[in-house]
Formats: sequence, structure tokens, C-alpha cells
Amino acid sequence: MRILLVNPNMSTDMTDRMADIARRIAGPDVDIVPLTARSGFPYIASRAEAQIAGGIAFDMIAENLAGADAVVMAAFGDPGLRGARELFDLPVIGMAEAAMLSAAMLGERFAIVTFSPVMRRWYLDCVHDSGLMGRCCGVRTPKAHPADMASMRETLRADLVALARQAIDEDGAEVIILGGAPLAGLAPEISDMVPAIVIDPIAAAVSQAIAMVRITTPSGFLDRQYRPLPKQATGLAPALTDILAGQMRQ
Amino acid sequence: MRILLVNPNMSTDMTDRMADIARRIAGPDVDIVPLTARSGFPYIASRAEAQIAGGIAFDMIAENLAGADAVVMAAFGDPGLRGARELFDLPVIGMAEAAMLSAAMLGERFAIVTFSPVMRRWYLDCVHDSGLMGRCCGVRTPKAHPADMASMRETLRADLVALARQAIDEDGAEVIILGGAPLAGLAPEISDMVPAIVIDPIAAAVSQAIAMVRITTPSGFLDRQYRPLPKQATGLAPALTDILAGQMRQ
Amino acid sequence: MRILLVNPNMSTDMTDRMADIARRIAGPDVDIVPLTARSGFPYIASRAEAQIAGGIAFDMIAENLAGADAVVMAAFGDPGLRGARELFDLPVIGMAEAAMLSAAMLGERFAIVTFSPVMRRWYLDCVHDSGLMGRCCGVRTPKAHPADMASMRETLRADLVALARQAIDEDGAEVIILGGAPLAGLAPEISDMVPAIVIDPIAAAVSQAIAMVRITTPSGFLDRQYRPLPKQATGLAPALTDILAGQMRQ
Amino acid sequence: MRILLVNPNMSTDMTDRMADIARRIAGPDVDIVPLTARSGFPYIASRAEAQIAGGIAFDMIAENLAGADAVVMAAFGDPGLRGARELFDLPVIGMAEAAMLSAAMLGERFAIVTFSPVMRRWYLDCVHDSGLMGRCCGVRTPKAHPADMASMRETLRADLVALARQAIDEDGAEVIILGGAPLAGLAPEISDMVPAIVIDPIAAAVSQAIAMVRITTPSGFLDRQYRPLPKQATGLAPALTDILAGQMRQ
Amino acid sequence: MRILLVNPNMSTDMTDRMADIARRIAGPDVDIVPLTARSGFPYIASRAEAQIAGGIAFDMIAENLAGADAVVMAAFGDPGLRGARELFDLPVIGMAEAAMLSAAMLGERFAIVTFSPVMRRWYLDCVHDSGLMGRCCGVRTPKAHPADMASMRETLRADLVALARQAIDEDGAEVIILGGAPLAGLAPEISDMVPAIVIDPIAAAVSQAIAMVRITTPSGFLDRQYRPLPKQATGLAPALTDILAGQMRQ
Amino acid sequence: MRILLVNPNMSTDMTDRMADIARRIAGPDVDIVPLTARSGFPYIASRAEAQIAGGIAFDMIAENLAGADAVVMAAFGDPGLRGARELFDLPVIGMAEAAMLSAAMLGERFAIVTFSPVMRRWYLDCVHDSGLMGRCCGVRTPKAHPADMASMRETLRADLVALARQAIDEDGAEVIILGGAPLAGLAPEISDMVPAIVIDPIAAAVSQAIAMVRITTPSGFLDRQYRPLPKQATGLAPALTDILAGQMRQ
Repeated sequence: MRILLVNPNMSTDMTDRMADIARRIAGPDVDIVPLTARSGFPYIASRAEAQIAGGIAFDMIAENLAGADAVVMAAFGDPGLRGARELFDLPVIGMAEAAMLSAAMLGERFAIVTFSPVMRRWYLDCVHDSGLMGRCCGVRTPKAHPADMASMRETLRADLVALARQAIDEDGAEVIILGGAPLAGLAPEISDMVPAIVIDPIAAAVSQAIAMVRITTPSGFLDRQYRPLPKQATGLAPALTDILAGQMRQ
Repeated sequence: MRILLVNPNMSTDMTDRMADIARRIAGPDVDIVPLTARSGFPYIASRAEAQIAGGIAFDMIAENLAGADAVVMAAFGDPGLRGARELFDLPVIGMAEAAMLSAAMLGERFAIVTFSPVMRRWYLDCVHDSGLMGRCCGVRTPKAHPADMASMRETLRADLVALARQAIDEDGAEVIILGGAPLAGLAPEISDMVPAIVIDPIAAAVSQAIAMVRITTPSGFLDRQYRPLPKQATGLAPALTDILAGQMRQ
Repeated sequence: MRILLVNPNMSTDMTDRMADIARRIAGPDVDIVPLTARSGFPYIASRAEAQIAGGIAFDMIAENLAGADAVVMAAFGDPGLRGARELFDLPVIGMAEAAMLSAAMLGERFAIVTFSPVMRRWYLDCVHDSGLMGRCCGVRTPKAHPADMASMRETLRADLVALARQAIDEDGAEVIILGGAPLAGLAPEISDMVPAIVIDPIAAAVSQAIAMVRITTPSGFLDRQYRPLPKQATGLAPALTDILAGQMRQ
Repeated sequence: MRILLVNPNMSTDMTDRMADIARRIAGPDVDIVPLTARSGFPYIASRAEAQIAGGIAFDMIAENLAGADAVVMAAFGDPGLRGARELFDLPVIGMAEAAMLSAAMLGERFAIVTFSPVMRRWYLDCVHDSGLMGRCCGVRTPKAHPADMASMRETLRADLVALARQAIDEDGAEVIILGGAPLAGLAPEISDMVPAIVIDPIAAAVSQAIAMVRITTPSGFLDRQYRPLPKQATGLAPALTDILAGQMRQ
Repeated sequence: MRILLVNPNMSTDMTDRMADIARRIAGPDVDIVPLTARSGFPYIASRAEAQIAGGIAFDMIAENLAGADAVVMAAFGDPGLRGARELFDLPVIGMAEAAMLSAAMLGERFAIVTFSPVMRRWYLDCVHDSGLMGRCCGVRTPKAHPADMASMRETLRADLVALARQAIDEDGAEVIILGGAPLAGLAPEISDMVPAIVIDPIAAAVSQAIAMVRITTPSGFLDRQYRPLPKQATGLAPALTDILAGQMRQ
Repeated sequence: MRILLVNPNMSTDMTDRMADIARRIAGPDVDIVPLTARSGFPYIASRAEAQIAGGIAFDMIAENLAGADAVVMAAFGDPGLRGARELFDLPVIGMAEAAMLSAAMLGERFAIVTFSPVMRRWYLDCVHDSGLMGRCCGVRTPKAHPADMASMRETLRADLVALARQAIDEDGAEVIILGGAPLAGLAPEISDMVPAIVIDPIAAAVSQAIAMVRITTPSGFLDRQYRPLPKQATGLAPALTDILAGQMRQ
């Protein structure tokens, strides 16, 4: 099985860390193909950036589609998820959505804890779009944006634990999602300090990608009535243009 | 990995068919332990029967918990799911909920197609309880209860395909869930005739169980603040009584 | 009129106190038949316990159904309510649901105040299942589980008043429900200190049972299209088995 | 116990029929005080008419408040309900809301069947405002407004039965509400032909009024924090003016 | 273009201030016709007062309808809005609804900030009725009702700014609505101190009235299938009686 | 006032027709600046195409931002709306959202009628994202995609009228939105045949843009706390890159 790990951010460090986690979760039989955006942003933190990065992700997928069995959109907030799912004939999994749907299978209500108040509204949009608002206790964040993104995994650790505890005590959360690609891999490190199930979104997304490959067939995607009609696109990258024209499907 | 496949119905035929599908999906590294209820009902078709069968399933889980990594509640409608999830310190997956959450990862809106109008209201309760009503196009069924449950997989095949097509054309469904344990395994047989992704709930539930084992740890469950407080139960089966008393956890 | 007061907990003290309140509310023309569970739990505090106790309540109802006009499920959280309502051919009233629906007739928004944070999530599930989340301001509880259940009606009195006042001031509650069978009868004692209408759930449930008997007829229940189909059950108590088989209806 | 039966329509025929039903339901110990609007409309059929009739009902209540224990707003659609409930220090029950909340205690989902497509949108507003949309299967009506309001109870009988059956078969309704004051009393006449529980809204409203008197105290209403502040009104009827000024409470 | 500015309160001071704002927003080509209630209340602060004032507003509109192109209901809380919209054959705009719908075009989530806790529940009803609860972060108010309504624009200024900041910081509000007719015109004065878009409801309502006149035609209103059927009303003011009888439309 | 009319489709015919309507609605004092995408698609019909076209629209806005007072995103479905609204410091109006919010001011419930079943799901996503699902009666379309896009305004005219009538009769719609840029300008042509208010989305969007400019100030946008933090973008067009870097604001 071959899974594209599409980081629509330009940070190869982040891609590397996520690929490590993905490989550990997926085991040796799954080929994880990490891809890092060559244009766009160091990291995505707004709806506007997500709009642009979603289109960039389409190019990344189209160029690497041959032989792939599934795609993981490796940015919490799931830029381009709805569109990619419609366009490409294979499972496309978003980190945020996969984490939320997994959380809903592990407890009745979940909360999202993340590193900056700047992310709060965008993540809340994701919850709303997923339809799972009724099972979400909210998004909790520190009061200020971290001064230094690089060191924040260390500097914010105690704060994130405290926020998770508040979500449990005050909001009744039974599952905690540690949202945001920069926090990938932190969940297992702090779960002992948090009296709830703690989910790492990249682990959730990779596991869900494998699960979705198992329960679907390529022909099921090809036969979909609601695949976009073939379109002649202008000025887009060649691989994506071919896909949009209805050619070169897997 | 060891997964309990808990059929809260008394039909061993149904258990056998679901165990076959589960093993095919899970592969050789996963030990599927099929369990069939020794009391209760031939098959569950109402909220009242689900209330009773949910308690029976608790006994089945408690007696077989040693060494288990996850539980699949193998009846669409998920009898006892919320309670089992709270009580047992491992992932507990429901066929209906797993199918719906998987469907939500494969398309924007899903429909449930099943074999009898009798099931409709109970399945609709499930959608409502899952919180995913906003992504569900409804439950479609034939007009009458099947005259013969044993042969209905053959006799109803064309009807079910027609119902799925209506859900796609008229309701905009992008994913079809073939609901009901008696239809287990039918999805791949009819998917070529249905222009959408068709989900087999037992396949979805087993894949989700494996995924949830991968992204959680036993200690995460043991540390949950919202585990039920230990209680002295009276008149219940010994294994379940021990669990409720806070003893003999895995 | 004959109303079964089904306490699915094993505490006869609690049954006695609720029966007193029920008789005072119902007056001399109504025969209140108090029933206490002979198996199960001292009191129910989790979804898991509610699943089991709901099945126990079915047995209690089935054994005492002859001559009954209505059933009150006398535990806040309403274990087994949906199923009992479907199975038995008479009005089945839940304490939590009756309190919430009554509250919705007395003001625009209500809050639930109860004695322990442990109950919070289960009660919140009830609000969600009732469909009345849009008229609920939330569930407020003390921060810790009471050290002693027997004396808490006295020790927690001031705390419960303070919580009710917060729900009014901060959440805009116009009606307060004092949730939890152990608090039965406390509402009239504290209502002078709470500037809102305060509801005692057992009083609400009994009044609703009488109201529902008045506006329905036995034949209306017997004629229901969505009564469960007769089923041959195995290993269940005789009275319930007969009901499930479609025999011995009232 | 003394209950004001406030018909905000000008039809004394309708008041008389509803008073008969109310007395039969309430029994000899309850004093039913029927009141018919002296201004306004022959019957209410729109949001605009309900706005005006709601104010007229306030006057009717204010003038007859002395000695009253509860108010039934005897027009389906509940004109003025929210405001009357806030203003008057006693239970105020609406026919539509009482019927819907009662229905929610008798089954999982209910439908409203009524006599004219003209009423459909207004009744749907009521469902929405009640917060119970999630438990409602919709409002079903004949295709055309009845040619003759006086004879429609006879001429429409078969149509209403057919609509109720459709709501059961196609929408899964477990309870049917026969909406609209002109249909008061028809429910028991047709319930044998409808395989579900059929609710007569005036019966539901009177029973709920009695229930609400039983579970509340006058002081509970007087102590409400959210009673309107006293206001000096200009140009309104004397009795209502006094109430608004905070005088002459019961 | 001629717009009726209907103040259903009796305060001419408030009408004058709102008319000034309306004229500044609308420009010289629009004729703003300010109308002040001659009966009713100094200002509306409850659901009960809104019910009465809505009917008074109908009279004010009916008497001044000749030549009007649109109506602005100039009280936050929109008394009588649904009914007026149905009855009169021109756009009827509510201050609260217009402010909320405008807010929804300027950001993803909005909050309402107002001058008294007394208004909170009524305004929350408005949000709920609008259907926009999912985009609303709540209603924030000072803890106590202002001692002096006349001077509160000055005395509460700092408090209102602080409340708006809390709604932004803690609830994620991107747009702030300064609710309540007594605060009309304050929004531009404090917007520099509030890091979000601040909406003045009277400005929003007048702009929306102009927009709605532009995109509709008088015949579109006259042709509506869902206009109330003509009715013979009794005891109402002559102009409104004519409208209700289907005469004297514009 | 200067409004950018951003057509993210490549069809200049469509841009011209929409610009004509916009100018007629806006009058001589408003400068309508029509812009047609130079890359992308002839017309957008899927979520995937909307993702790409949204990014293209950002470039179009960024290049023409100098001197602009508002932006109209001139494609029903509102590609890129959320992101553009966040990024650009002026009102950004979407055709679909503006039409829906306007509809909600003209009646209680609206329906969308459009030219192809292919558009149905994407438009339904828009309704859901707007939060107005509770006031929407659904999306109605012909059964098949039109054979010829160019002539469909003529060939489909009768079908669209019939669909609108069904939405009114069967779903209770009080307002009809003629959705889809290819139908721009058709609303006034068919409104005489449709007994409801019919909305032309481009007219609604332009009117709303003017309204939003009137009730906001440029500084209100610049001061927003939730403006995206400045970011160094790579590989994007120069004008957009400058905006993203926080430079060259209007």
C-alpha cells in the first residue's frame, strides 16, 4: 500500500517528523511517500492561506498520483479536503477530520487543544464543516501566539497539559485532540499527564487512510456518479490539467 | 492484535459470515474472536431488543476481555455502545457508527439502505445519536418487511440497488451504507451496480477497530477521569460484576 | 388510575421517598405502585450502569404490568426509556425527559443542577437525546463527588442554591431542574432561595404520567404500526419473554 | 383549580367545543373558564394575525386573572405564548407546544396533520421555535384550502386519515398531532383508523395545564428574576396596564 | 425611495437619533419617514412588551403605507417582524435581523453586546429565530441594569468596549453588533477601541432596506402565494382592518 | 464607490452580462470593475474547481485592489469567500451567501432552483456553510445536465418555473433564489410566473456590497484582531505576495 503524505506547508522539518510518525503507525508493509510544498507558506494559519495551499496540494497529489492508494492531507485544518476528495479517485484523508471522527469513536465528546489563539477560528470552522459540532466541547488555546515556533513544543508543554485538563474538568471532554501539525508527535509524550484519551492527528490520519483503502475498491471511486465532469482547464500545472480533463486516472 | 467480534444476536450463521469478512479485512496478524449471544434474540429489530441485547453484550465482553485489544459490536444499531465504551478499557467500535464515520471520510453526504421498514426508525436514532444527521441523506428501505429473512439477500438484491440509486439521484448521496447485519458482505457484490462508494459495515467496523488500537494505548483508557466509579453490583454475571467493581481490568 | 413507579436502583429508601412525593402529587384517586430493583446497583451514575438497569427495569415492568395505566421510570437519566416506550402498550414516562419537557412549558430556557460532576456527561446525553439542547443552558455541578451520599442533601444544599443562581445569572436560565433521584423532594425546600421556577423531576414525571393517561387510550397503543414484531426470546425472565412474544398484553 | 381557556379567535362555537373537551378531560374538580375574543379574527391563519391576536389574548388574561391557576392559549400556533409566559405569574400553556411536548413523551418522532396548506408555514414556525424540529417528521396538509370551514370536519375526515397514514409510512411518525383549533375533538373519532397514537391538542393543553399547576407554586412565579421590570404603559386596556406596572398580581 | 422608520417605542428622542443616522446612511435621495409609537412603552425590554408593540407597529405601518417602499422596524428584537413581513407587500427589515445577517457577510462569527442583562434572553431568542445561532458567539452584557437610561451611553462606554474585547478574545467574535435602540449611533464612536468590525444596527437596517427595494419589485410581493387570505377583522384600527381585508394595498 | 466584480470563471460573456445587471442595480455613482479569470475554467461546477478558482480569485483581487471599496465574488458557490474575507481589508460579498441572507430578510424560508443536478451538492454545501440550513427548503434541479449551456436560458425556462412552483407548493418556500451565474438576469424575466419573491443573486450581491460599504469603515477592517499574521509566501503572484506579507494594503 502506498500513501501520499502531502504537507501543504513548505517546512521539510515538519514533513520529516510527520513521516516518522506515519511510518511507525503504518508498519513496514505501507509505503509512506512524504511530499513538501515547493510554494506557498512556511505554515498555514488562516483560512486565506488554506485556500491557496489547498490548490497547491492538488498539484502535489496530481504529480504523484501514479501508484498511490490513498492521500493524507497533512495539515490540521484540512486545506482543500472537500475538493480533493471529489476530484481524485482514491481515499483522501484530512488530519483534522480524521482526528475528530476517530475521537467520536473513542468517547462521547472531544475537545481540541492547540498552540495559538490565532488557529482557533479556523479549527472551529473545521469542526463546524465536519458536522460534529454537537460532539465537540470547543477549542482551547494559550492566550498569546508563541514567541518562537521552533521551541514551542518544549515551552508550551505544561500549558497544553493545563488546557487539556480544563477541557476535561470544565467542558466534560472525554477525548483530547492535540491539533496543529507543529504538535505532531507530542500526544504520546503528554498523555500520561492528561486523564483522557489523547489523539495525535497524524497518527489518526494515517490509520484512517489504511482503513479506508481496506474497505474501498478503486472501481468504487471511478464509478461515482458525482465525479466532476471533465473540464478543459487553462493555465494550471500539466498533471492537474490532465486529471481535470478526465485523463490519466490511476 | 486480538479483536472480539461480539454478535449480540443468537444467529451463529450470521456470526460466521461476519467473522469471515472480518478475517479477510484484518489479515493474518489479527486474531478475530467471534462470539455469539447465548440468550436474547435471533436478530435485533427494535429499540427494546437493543436495550436488552446491549446488556447481554456486556457479559460477552466481560467474559472474554482477557487479552483482547478491541471490541467490535457486530450489530447495526450498536446496542450498548455508549455504555460499553465507558466501561471497558479498550476501543469499542459499533458497526453503525463506524460505517457512518467512515462514510463521512469518503464523501460529503451518505445514505443508509436496509432490508426492512421496521429497521428504519431505530437506524435513524443511531444517525441522530452519532451527531452526523447533517451529513446523512436519510434511510431508505423496501415498503414491506421481507417474507423470508434467510433468502432475502437474493430476493431483495435488485430492490436494494434501486433504493441506493434513488438515494444518489434524489437525495444527493455520495456514499451508500448497506445497513443491517443480515446484509453483511453484500456491499462488494452490488457495488458495481451502484454509482457511489458502497460501505460494508462489518468491514468498516473491523478496520476502525484496528485503526483505534494503533492510535491509542491501554494506559490512556485506564487513566480516564470519566471511567465509572467502582460499584458493587448485585445479581449480575461474575465477570461483569468484577469489572463493575473495578477489578480484573485487562 | 394505577401508576408503576419503577426505581431501577436498589435503594428502597429512595423508592420510599419518591413514592411519598408521587402520592402527594397524584392525590388519593391514583394508585402509586413503588417497585425497587432486586438486582443491579445502589444508584446509577454512568451510561454503562444505565444500559444494564434499563433491562432490569423491563423485567420489573413486565412482572407488574397487569392493571397498570402508566409507568414512571424513576431514575434521572431515564434508563431504558426509548425501548420501554416502544415495547409496552401504555405511557412510559422518564424523570429526566418529563422534567425537561415540563421546564420547556414554564420558560424559554432551563438548566440542570445536580450533586456530582460524575453525572454531568450522562445527563448531558439525555438533553441531547431529547432534542431540547437548544433550550438548555447546560448542566451545573459541584467540583467534586460528594464524600457521603446519605448526608449530601444537607451538606450540599447551599452549593446547589449557588449553582442554580449561577445558571440564572450567567446562562440566562428561567427554569431550574434539580436532577438526580437522590435529590428528589429537595426542590420545594430550596425554591425560595432560587429566583426561578424550580422543578422536582419525580413530581414532574408523575404529573406527566397522569396527563398522558388522560389524553391516550389503550387501543391507541395496541394499534401502533411501529410496535416491535413478536419475537421468541431465549434466557430472559418469563413475564418479559411473554411480552416480547406478543402475548399477555394488558 | 381554575383554568382560563383563552380562545384568541372570535368563534364562540369553537370555544364551546373546546370547553366541552376541556371539561371532560379535567373532571369536576377543575373550573374551566372559557373566554372568546371580542375583537380580532374569526380564526387565525397567519403569522400577522397571530401577532395581533396574541396582544388581544393578553387583555383577556389580564381581565380574568383573579383566582386563575393556569392559562390555556386555545389556538394551535400559540399566539403570544412566549410573552404571556413571561408576563403572567402562573403557568401559560400553548396548544401547539403542549401537543408537541406530549407527543415527544409518547414516541420518538411526531408529525402534524392539519386541514389547509395555508397553515403549514405558521405551524412549522411553531415546531422550529419549540426546539423540537429534530423530533418532528413534518407538517402534512391537503393540497387546497377547504371550501367550507364549517363542514370540513366531515368532508376532510378521510383525507386527514390518509395524510396521517402517509406520515407514518413514509416519514416514520410514531405519534400524530391533529393540529388546528377547528379540528378539536376529531382525534378520538379517527384514531381507530390511524396506526399510531393520535393527539388532540386541546386535551393535551388542558392536561398539561393541570400538571404544571401541580408541580409549581405561585411564589415560584413571583420570585422569578426574569419577570419583566415594571413599566408604565400608555393606551392599553386598564387591567393589562396594571399588570405591566407590576400591580394587581394574583 | 421612501422608507418608514417605525419606532415601536414611545421615545421621540430615540426616534430622532435613529432618523439622523438613517438619513446620513441613506443619503439625500431617500425619504426617511420617522414614526414614533403613540401608545405602548417608553422602551421595550421583554417578550411580552414586544408582543404588544408588534401589534402597535402594524397600525403605524398601515396608516403610513401609501407611497412607502420599505419599512424598518426600529427596535432591536424586531417586534412583529415575521407577521409584518407576511402582511405588508413591501420589504420589512428588522434591526436585529439586519444586523445579524450583515454581520454574517463581514465575518464568520459575530457577538452581540448590549447595555443590560435584562435584554439578554430576548436578544438570544432573536438569534435563535434567525437561524444564525451557529454563527453567533453569544450575547454579552454588564452584570446590572443601568441605573439611568439617559446617561448610560456615556457611563457604560468603557464597559461596552471591555465586553466587546472579551467576545473577541474569549469567544472568537470577528464582528460585534452593538444591540439595542438606546445604543444607536454609538458603534462608530467606539469602533477604534474594538479590534473587530463593529455594526450599528440602525445603519445596517436602513442599508438593507435600500438593498431589498433594489432587488425586488412591488408585483413580486403582490403575487406571493403565501400572502394571508383576506380576513374580516373586528375592533382593529381602520387602516389595518383594510389591509387585512385585502384592500388598499399600495 | 468602486466595486470589483470578480468572475472566477473564464467566460467574458458571463462577466459582461453580470456587469450589465450590476450597473443597472448600482446606478451611476458606483464604478463596477468587471474582471474575468485568465486561467482556470469556463465555468465552475464542483468543489474541486472552486478550490482552485478561489485561489485564482485572490490574485484577481490583489492586482486590482487599489481604490476598490468592495469585492463581489461573482460565482454562485462563492469560491474562496471565507479566505478572501479574512485576507482583504474591505467587504467581500459572495453571490450565493448574499442571495441567501437577502432571502432570509424577505421571507421565512427560501429554496434554490438551478439548471443542473451536477450543481446540487456544491450549492447544498454553501447553504450548510452559511448556517442557514434551518431556513432553506432545499435545492431543486432538472433531472439531467443541460445538453447545451449556451441556449439553456431559453430551453430550461419552463422547467425552472415548474421547479420553483414545486418548491413553493411542496416545500413551503416563500422566496426563490435562481442560483448559478449562467442564470444571472433570468429572475426578473420569470418572476411573473412564480408566486413568490424571486431573487437574482448578482443583483443581491451588488446591493449587499453597497450596503456593506455604507455601514463599515476601512479602519474597521485594518484594526481587526483576526487579520492573518504577515507571512512570507513563495511562488505566488507578486500582488498577492505583497498582501500576504502585510504590505500595500489599500
